[in-house]
Amino acid sequence: MMAVDDTPSVTIRQDEFVTIGPGTLSGRFLRRFWQPVYLAAELKPGRAVPLRILGEDFTLYRGENAPHLLAFRCAHRGTQLSTGWVEGDNLRCFYHGWTYGPDGQCIEQPAEPEPLCQRSRIRSYPVQEYLGLILAYLGEGEAPPFPRYEQLEGEGVLETHAYVRECSYFNSLENNMDEAHIAFAHRSSEFTASGLNSFLPEISGEETDYGVVRRGSRPNGAERVLHLVMPNLLVFKGAPSPETGETEGRDQFAWRVPIDDLQHRSFNVSFVHATGEAAERYRERMQERQGPTGQPSANELARAVLRGEMHVDEITGRPDIVNIQDVVAQVGQGQIPDRASEHLGRTDVLIMLLRKIYLRELQALAEGQPLKPWAQPRQLAAAFGI
Amino acid sequence: MMAVDDTPSVTIRQDEFVTIGPGTLSGRFLRRFWQPVYLAAELKPGRAVPLRILGEDFTLYRGENAPHLLAFRCAHRGTQLSTGWVEGDNLRCFYHGWTYGPDGQCIEQPAEPEPLCQRSRIRSYPVQEYLGLILAYLGEGEAPPFPRYEQLEGEGVLETHAYVRECSYFNSLENNMDEAHIAFAHRSSEFTASGLNSFLPEISGEETDYGVVRRGSRPNGAERVLHLVMPNLLVFKGAPSPETGETEGRDQFAWRVPIDDLQHRSFNVSFVHATGEAAERYRERMQERQGPTGQPSANELARAVLRGEMHVDEITGRPDIVNIQDVVAQVGQGQIPDRASEHLGRTDVLIMLLRKIYLRELQALAEGQPLKPWAQPRQLAAAFGI
Amino acid sequence: MMAVDDTPSVTIRQDEFVTIGPGTLSGRFLRRFWQPVYLAAELKPGRAVPLRILGEDFTLYRGENAPHLLAFRCAHRGTQLSTGWVEGDNLRCFYHGWTYGPDGQCIEQPAEPEPLCQRSRIRSYPVQEYLGLILAYLGEGEAPPFPRYEQLEGEGVLETHAYVRECSYFNSLENNMDEAHIAFAHRSSEFTASGLNSFLPEISGEETDYGVVRRGSRPNGAERVLHLVMPNLLVFKGAPSPETGETEGRDQFAWRVPIDDLQHRSFNVSFVHATGEAAERYRERMQERQGPTGQPSANELARAVLRGEMHVDEITGRPDIVNIQDVVAQVGQGQIPDRASEHLGRTDVLIMLLRKIYLRELQALAEGQPLKPWAQPRQLAAAFGI
Repeated sequence: MMAVDDTPSVTIRQDEFVTIGPGTLSGRFLRRFWQPVYLAAELKPGRAVPLRILGEDFTLYRGENAPHLLAFRCAHRGTQLSTGWVEGDNLRCFYHGWTYGPDGQCIEQPAEPEPLCQRSRIRSYPVQEYLGLILAYLGEGEAPPFPRYEQLEGEGVLETHAYVRECSYFNSLENNMDEAHIAFAHRSSEFTASGLNSFLPEISGEETDYGVVRRGSRPNGAERVLHLVMPNLLVFKGAPSPETGETEGRDQFAWRVPIDDLQHRSFNVSFVHATGEAAERYRERMQERQGPTGQPSANELARAVLRGEMHVDEITGRPDIVNIQDVVAQVGQGQIPDRASEHLGRTDVLIMLLRKIYLRELQALAEGQPLKPWAQPRQLAAAFGI
Repeated sequence: MMAVDDTPSVTIRQDEFVTIGPGTLSGRFLRRFWQPVYLAAELKPGRAVPLRILGEDFTLYRGENAPHLLAFRCAHRGTQLSTGWVEGDNLRCFYHGWTYGPDGQCIEQPAEPEPLCQRSRIRSYPVQEYLGLILAYLGEGEAPPFPRYEQLEGEGVLETHAYVRECSYFNSLENNMDEAHIAFAHRSSEFTASGLNSFLPEISGEETDYGVVRRGSRPNGAERVLHLVMPNLLVFKGAPSPETGETEGRDQFAWRVPIDDLQHRSFNVSFVHATGEAAERYRERMQERQGPTGQPSANELARAVLRGEMHVDEITGRPDIVNIQDVVAQVGQGQIPDRASEHLGRTDVLIMLLRKIYLRELQALAEGQPLKPWAQPRQLAAAFGI
Repeated sequence: MMAVDDTPSVTIRQDEFVTIGPGTLSGRFLRRFWQPVYLAAELKPGRAVPLRILGEDFTLYRGENAPHLLAFRCAHRGTQLSTGWVEGDNLRCFYHGWTYGPDGQCIEQPAEPEPLCQRSRIRSYPVQEYLGLILAYLGEGEAPPFPRYEQLEGEGVLETHAYVRECSYFNSLENNMDEAHIAFAHRSSEFTASGLNSFLPEISGEETDYGVVRRGSRPNGAERVLHLVMPNLLVFKGAPSPETGETEGRDQFAWRVPIDDLQHRSFNVSFVHATGEAAERYRERMQERQGPTGQPSANELARAVLRGEMHVDEITGRPDIVNIQDVVAQVGQGQIPDRASEHLGRTDVLIMLLRKIYLRELQALAEGQPLKPWAQPRQLAAAFGI
């Protein structure tokens, strides 16, 4: 092929978005945004842990208060820094005691007769604690402004949790663009209470200044509305909690963050608009829902379904049944689906839109062209559609 | 090399028979024959299961009665079809409800405002239920006539079971061409009762119109006779059952079907010539032989032997000891043996014959030449040799 | 690059010492020396085991007394010989009874009408039993003189054990050249009793006729001395046993032998200078130290530390804490560290020396030049340094 002025001079794969390691186009793209990387409650003061995210290894630690993020290995002889000692807000290597500040600067080489600390600096990354999450900026250059979400900052019950799904993050993003699957994959689920899975929706949506809006209109006039905030944040409404007297449903934020090309972690924030006694009742119900420990995990049950040992309809008594059904559908496509073999239909229009947006941005990145300056929304009017 | 008229124009590997995936020479050859793929009793009505056989994934399901075999994935977005719902003799995809008939034709796309079912058809495969097995034709074009075996269709006790062996199917086929190993690998086994392992046999055999006949003559005049029906069916006699008063031994049919290049499943049919009370006595003994559950599997024991943790002679009280000994010998050769390092002898003459036949047929297939039209025998006179 | 007379004509990797399989430079180098391959006590008379060492598979067996080492597979059809039968000092194959003498010569092909034993010989390797170890010469040509160590042959308590470490043997060798890490990785350990971990040592050392001597001088004048006997034997002093009244500490010999590129086995011989009642007291204490069974292994604990589930300082009550700390440090570098990313200091001087010696010898080997004729020391004056 000849390259002429109007022709892109770089050819990218039609599923270029699935490879996210350091240096890949999609890896560089996702690293241009703040990303959640860990649950704040799981990082105790004075502790360091190894962190794998976006196909890369890091050292995450918490000093007296604040979390810090450094490269995975000591500059000296490459020992994994998470095995070392947190001292104040610094991190001392386990092997020979080299010590780094939160900015990655080596500040001690205690065994060396003539230390040359100033020559050893490892990468450090900006981190922020927010909404029960630790978010990091893993890209090059100055971090963009830190995104805040007013609708999660009022009075109410904030819940944060995470799960691993054993397929590409993009399987999950596409699932979030897909209003039609609710009537099938989730036909036996809590969606039955709201009737959302008993009608086939009319699907619409479009690109916005922050990403994509998706709408599903039911025959009864109800409209479910969901937002994709680029590149990988879903904003939607969850079912209202009977305990709280909510009418609109809770606010749900979910980031689909690649661990590597073959699996991702979903970081989920839920905000229930309840205060006082209503909040108390809600917290009590959540305690009860925890259920007995020792049960198989959602991923274990889904694997048994995918091996043909049981049907998903045979799983009962699981409050996370919607999650299990989504694992079956998404991992069932293959960890990286063969998109060249698909036969897409009218209901897949927003999936096609999402891919088009990603490929347009990745193409621009490949060519050194400017990317779209996505807006950072403070309030997004999602709707549960009932 | 120059290609002249008499010279094969395609060069194939000297162990070309070990690679059996779709599109390989050996994969294409094996797919020209009906193959057992599943135990009929393990496929319940209304259930779908994923099936891996011949290095390929399929969806096997049973409608109200009949089994059906389709491609592994939905044409729409690639979800694994076995996770869906069987409806009558059709299969509905779990993700968006696309539905397929047993012929692979899409007949419903329920979420689509304007369905285009006729454009979506996935592959389907002829299947037959016979002898407690589900057999399928996985090849191109019209299926060959379905093979039936009169000697298994009379009155008697028919038993069908299967096991996985963690090596190439060809290790097993070669073992079946090998009368000499009985005196060594099986020297402590049920063969002792018949004396078959106490003499070294004189081995003979030749190519027939259905495959290969193998004979082992013992010094006492007894002759053990076994047949290979091309490409991978063994027909032989098992030890007579004392309970039944049999004199000739039971009829045994065993297909060695590749799961992939590195392991195969053996489908075994045994026909005991016993009726009435003799049959009842036999069934009772079989019940007793099941033994306690929770014992290590044959493969687990063989792995311990191969790791050097125990000798196979230390295994006692196992009715499947011959099977365990065969696993040790065959997996002990390596999952795909290095045949270039062998030193074959006179006793390996039928192994050499089997390879020669396979390579001749694969060579013809590679060159687009006609293959031998193997006869389908109805009666084969195997003998236990006692 | 042009090759001129003084320029090495072969370019080797700067971590050429990490790849040790058959045919590699480092594999050929290590195979020029006798190597321990198994614990003598674990090989029972009449038993054969598979052995993997230096990236290669072998068959090790013990006849009536002596151990023998043969190739991994039978010459006939490649079955793993360890599954066979030891008969006197010979080994009979499990599959068809071919039998080999300790020299690898086939001496029986019992099923063959016209045996051709003399044409089938598999490789055999010189082995010696010494110090509770089985040592082998796995190289080409005549074995070098068998090394003996007078200081381990007197009256005293000889203990021999082995462990697997899941990283390159060279991580371990480098750790042994590294006096500085004791004050950090081992700061909470039995070294505290001797004070060896409370001072930073002044490090010195040099190449000798047998390998490398390493010295660490403490401010109080105490000097710890350790020897590397090329290519992979460490000779040092362990802490004196209070039960025995030792003053100088026990003699410790440790060979770091690659299993493959990614893991190695350490064979350890300890010689306590105690006789009579003192020896008895010592043996009793060792019995007590065994502790309850069912505890996690050193490697399991270290893996939990490397996954970030616990800090090594949280492990208590383990007599093998120094070993666990070394696993964390060495496996924490990666199974094969990225040495191109290091920042070495003054304290790493003996690590640099060790690499230089190895690379010099491997370079000579690559070019067909003579290697250094390492001396085999009978007595090495190691010191514990207190």
